[in-house]
Amino acid sequence: MPLDLATIDHELRESPIRKIALLLSGQKHAKDIISFGGGAPSLPPPKEVVNSLITALRKDPKGTMSYTATNGNLSLREKIYGDLKKHEHVSINPKQVAITTGATGAIDLALESLINPGDEIILADPTYAGYPGPGIKERAKIKYVPTKWQDNFEINADALRSQITRKTKAFILLSPDNPTGRVLSKESIKAICDLAKDKDFWIITDETYKDILYEGRHWPAYNFAPDNTLSIFTYSKSASSPALRLGYVYGPEAAIDGIVKLNQFVTLCPSNISQIGAEAFYAVKKKYLRTKVLPIYKKRMEAMGRALSEYLPLAGYVKPQGAFYYFVDFTLYLRDLKISEVKFAERLLKEKHVVVIPGRFFGKSGENHCRLTFVAETEERIAEGIKRIADFFV
Amino acid sequence: MPLDLATIDHELRESPIRKIALLLSGQKHAKDIISFGGGAPSLPPPKEVVNSLITALRKDPKGTMSYTATNGNLSLREKIYGDLKKHEHVSINPKQVAITTGATGAIDLALESLINPGDEIILADPTYAGYPGPGIKERAKIKYVPTKWQDNFEINADALRSQITRKTKAFILLSPDNPTGRVLSKESIKAICDLAKDKDFWIITDETYKDILYEGRHWPAYNFAPDNTLSIFTYSKSASSPALRLGYVYGPEAAIDGIVKLNQFVTLCPSNISQIGAEAFYAVKKKYLRTKVLPIYKKRMEAMGRALSEYLPLAGYVKPQGAFYYFVDFTLYLRDLKISEVKFAERLLKEKHVVVIPGRFFGKSGENHCRLTFVAETEERIAEGIKRIADFFV
Repeated sequence: MPLDLATIDHELRESPIRKIALLLSGQKHAKDIISFGGGAPSLPPPKEVVNSLITALRKDPKGTMSYTATNGNLSLREKIYGDLKKHEHVSINPKQVAITTGATGAIDLALESLINPGDEIILADPTYAGYPGPGIKERAKIKYVPTKWQDNFEINADALRSQITRKTKAFILLSPDNPTGRVLSKESIKAICDLAKDKDFWIITDETYKDILYEGRHWPAYNFAPDNTLSIFTYSKSASSPALRLGYVYGPEAAIDGIVKLNQFVTLCPSNISQIGAEAFYAVKKKYLRTKVLPIYKKRMEAMGRALSEYLPLAGYVKPQGAFYYFVDFTLYLRDLKISEVKFAERLLKEKHVVVIPGRFFGKSGENHCRLTFVAETEERIAEGIKRIADFFV
Repeated sequence: MPLDLATIDHELRESPIRKIALLLSGQKHAKDIISFGGGAPSLPPPKEVVNSLITALRKDPKGTMSYTATNGNLSLREKIYGDLKKHEHVSINPKQVAITTGATGAIDLALESLINPGDEIILADPTYAGYPGPGIKERAKIKYVPTKWQDNFEINADALRSQITRKTKAFILLSPDNPTGRVLSKESIKAICDLAKDKDFWIITDETYKDILYEGRHWPAYNFAPDNTLSIFTYSKSASSPALRLGYVYGPEAAIDGIVKLNQFVTLCPSNISQIGAEAFYAVKKKYLRTKVLPIYKKRMEAMGRALSEYLPLAGYVKPQGAFYYFVDFTLYLRDLKISEVKFAERLLKEKHVVVIPGRFFGKSGENHCRLTFVAETEERIAEGIKRIADFFV
């Protein structure tokens, strides 16, 4: 006789992307599989980050293995503060920053610190598949603002306004975006910020991909609406270091205080080992991004763009300005086959050994689309993978 | 105009123990301070754990820095499974285990996966100061079962029964206990388990200190009530490795599934680096505990016991059977001074440079008591610290 779980349990889903990873691990021809699937960075972390961990563990194992303050080491928060000031003209103090378990931990704490059961949050559609879950677990109602490639996946301020009610607590903003690669312009960010100030809701801005920019510029929402904005970052993508499980959130001091109080009961404190690695990243961040990350990812992004235009001329998409992904509209191909993009992704894996992620996992507007990650394969294999997709449709 | 936070915000308190740590960092005579305060382990981690991290980071930086499954690496879960089977006669499969952010993360996920707003949880009083918070954040009502040193801090099954209602969702069981050092007997554990089965509530058993035993034996509640028990462990104390921020929870598969679904949105996955360290621990666990941890902590425990009996003959306490602490009743001393134990702790730090933790932080029954950690100081300094307390009362 199994005892009851909380009522939210049946509303939470296992990540479909993680399910595909599982499916993948069961495949026989694993070597032959071309993955446009996961969102993991594909480069080794900076050697300076790795060496900082090795040195700390060697020199002072006991100190390195100790607890830290719940909001994180002051030395790391000062690095963050300095970096934001220098590169984004963001002026905060170290009390306005809390170190978290990556962006995931920061989003969870941000929502948990803000939401009362029944409050509403608004998401773009499509958007990162990990946003509805933390909202559902706080018993929030989730509302959506549709976007489409024909409009460059822009968030229309009027469409956003139409979803706002007295119960609206927050809008989650992701730019550069997953799955679409869209980078919002200064004007778009400002329009959303003005609306937040006018209508009294929070902007939770997930800046996971802010360093992964191929064109355009990153405009921190905090500078337009400092009283309404919680800004989130992770070291997973920029430093190619997911195993640090480290990120941060900054915003108004009262909100950060609330987040830190909650985090006492969620993690107690961030890992000191991870914080040492993150601190070391700041010394090499600019060079690592400019000489290693961006040139390689940009070439792969362009290789996928060329292959899409050559082999799949009826596909709809916009060239990503940032992040890791193309979000491709396959409507004109799927129509003839009379299958959904979910079925397509399944059959593509089985028949052509190519992994893509069905678009509906990112929201209803994603139907008939698929997300294609371009950072995980070489340029040659990217071209080969897109060719295999075209072959599938022949 | 600061925007609203969730209504739970004003009910959550900053940990008073962490406040004392802050007070401490502001003290001028830091070197002279004898700390019976924090609950951090005081030994270096096993060198094999440290070396496993260094080797992994050196040999395969990219692989070491990668994401893992949300429930953790299978290789670690198999080690846990094997260890539980061998040393505690617990029979589970690796799907019944999820890796978490220490015990803190496991307790948070366990409560979040079980509790609907308005449900009740029952705690011992006194108990670990970190339990009410995660209950409050799930909007649970917290009820208490008082215990006292005169009864060896035993949890009386009738007293527990009297707190049970139709809304009771879980009882949190901690043995060896913080702050009292009490280890529950087989009969006590079984009585609580029988009650849980009879009245349909969960036992969340925090086994943080299960390896830190000076006498008696650890009886896993899971073996008495496998359908009702979620068992929690952390590597922070046993492996002297708080910075791994790693632990696990095991229990019925459906409950562990629910916890893993939630954890997607709380941490995404545990740190691969930390999991590599935890895996290495199993090869040396027995020897490390038997030759390093237990002999040193036991001598310190006995040194504090001797000093208490010599210098503070009117203090009430029981010799701890496990964990890091004496929970000392100062009623007969404080009565004459007409001060609370909170005031006493403050003045003791200021006047005698000794840190103790006021008992009410662990529950109402802790009034006039203080928690004294014995693992953080040498035997000589422990004797000196207790002598200073006696001097305070002269």
